[in-house]
Amino acid sequence: MMKKVFVIGMTAAVLMASTLAAATDVEDAIEYRQGVFNTIKWNFGPMAAMVKGKIDFDAAEFSRRADVVAVLAKLPREGFIEGSDVGETDARPEIWENKDDFDAGMDALAKNAAALADAAKSGDMDVIKPVFGELGKTCKGCHDDFRVED
Amino acid sequence: MMKKVFVIGMTAAVLMASTLAAATDVEDAIEYRQGVFNTIKWNFGPMAAMVKGKIDFDAAEFSRRADVVAVLAKLPREGFIEGSDVGETDARPEIWENKDDFDAGMDALAKNAAALADAAKSGDMDVIKPVFGELGKTCKGCHDDFRVED
Repeated sequence: MMKKVFVIGMTAAVLMASTLAAATDVEDAIEYRQGVFNTIKWNFGPMAAMVKGKIDFDAAEFSRRADVVAVLAKLPREGFIEGSDVGETDARPEIWENKDDFDAGMDALAKNAAALADAAKSGDMDVIKPVFGELGKTCKGCHDDFRVED
Repeated sequence: MMKKVFVIGMTAAVLMASTLAAATDVEDAIEYRQGVFNTIKWNFGPMAAMVKGKIDFDAAEFSRRADVVAVLAKLPREGFIEGSDVGETDARPEIWENKDDFDAGMDALAKNAAALADAAKSGDMDVIKPVFGELGKTCKGCHDDFRVED
């Protein structure tokens, strides 16, 4: 009897520990991907302002930020771990329900961010503008389908 | 009299607007640098586990994460804007009081992260280990001096 109680107690302890670990993993993953997207947004802002002519076009600065975004664009995916559709997140369950579509969106993000980094090396706003537009559409497309927008 | 009241009212409105704008800037800057550091931490974790032998050494994966960290390491500085020592932050006022020391720390972070990315290309843990140790010390040095540690 004692042994059985002990085994049940241990099983419960192990289950609780693994549930706690999973909860931490989920929180860390959510915080991670939000940090990545926020860093993308921070760098996207001045580029958007240059494209719209709200601030002067600085080709070197634009190119530097485009390079950063090209690296960042490859990072969010690993933060969308199984079970991380709950908690402090705007991620919609559709991400995990339509994983192939979501992955295709992530691929498009990486591809179009790389294309922008390439275009930015031209230093020519006429070359940059349409590529920047494509990247913006890619962001919006995924936000519409997979994110709770404010 | 009406005119004077109007001018005072307008001045107050402009002051309030600029204070609000500054508050938003500060919040955005804090959130930005925290996102960057968190993304560094996320990528640092698996590298540290490999260095300590807690998980198997995967040279390609290590190198990929080291490359990411080398890019990220250059980013936090622009988030430490004037006045962003208040609010939801662990940044200590010493950052702005000893700006030269802090900037030297940021330079060291970028330099040592770049050195790790180089070392990682060797695929040799014996080459990587001391360079990783240097980067870890650089993190700790700035945290000790400039961050409210838990």
